[in-house]
Amino acid sequence: MSDSPAPLEHETFPRGEENPFGRHFTGKSYLHLLSTDQATIGNVTFEPGCRNHWHVHRATSGGGQILLITGGRGWYQEWGRPARALKAGDVVNVPADVKHWHGAAADSWFAHLAVEVPAENGSTEWCEPVSDEEYAAL
Amino acid sequence: MSDSPAPLEHETFPRGEENPFGRHFTGKSYLHLLSTDQATIGNVTFEPGCRNHWHVHRATSGGGQILLITGGRGWYQEWGRPARALKAGDVVNVPADVKHWHGAAADSWFAHLAVEVPAENGSTEWCEPVSDEEYAAL
Repeated sequence: MSDSPAPLEHETFPRGEENPFGRHFTGKSYLHLLSTDQATIGNVTFEPGCRNHWHVHRATSGGGQILLITGGRGWYQEWGRPARALKAGDVVNVPADVKHWHGAAADSWFAHLAVEVPAENGSTEWCEPVSDEEYAAL
Repeated sequence: MSDSPAPLEHETFPRGEENPFGRHFTGKSYLHLLSTDQATIGNVTFEPGCRNHWHVHRATSGGGQILLITGGRGWYQEWGRPARALKAGDVVNVPADVKHWHGAAADSWFAHLAVEVPAENGSTEWCEPVSDEEYAAL
């Protein structure tokens, strides 16, 4: 018998496999690529407490991501700013060149689509993990 | 008492208002813009039988749309090709410069996100309606 939170009731898009970028995450996440043509769009599902490391979407033009929250509850935070609580139906415009992280709440699964905004010279710069102390203080 | 199909059980994103582009649709649809920054993303909901007119996303570079089906059942068809049946979880990459339409099945509500791929000199060329005969033959 476990008291861990129930998985999402409703998953519109396939959950996919364990996230191949998992080394840049704390905890377990899943990635299913919905589009690699025209624009890359991934369905990312986070187990409770899972979040990615601080990171920056670099680009000389365009770039960044748009997060479309499809289930559960989670967080988005930009460096030096308060974290924003997220739930299904919410949208986050993540600008290029802004250090940030996103992930699940401690007590909820969380899923979002990540739409990569086409970029010139786009890349992702991965930084330090969100520490347990930072995360516990949310 | 009505025997019309039930609305979607699960609507992740707001349905929004009656579609301001309704003159290019047969039947009633709704549009809620989720992002107008970085890339335009709309949540489009179609009543049963509703479909947009044949149209073309024009662009000199980039352009087109990516449709992410979030609920119900519907259709996508490119000019001169068989229609493709769609359901929640499906994805359609709509290339620029390809004449096409999309919309609900006759007996189901239908909802998709439409991600507009950033374009140079992007515009939409609206053409003739999908006739009742074409639609009934699906």
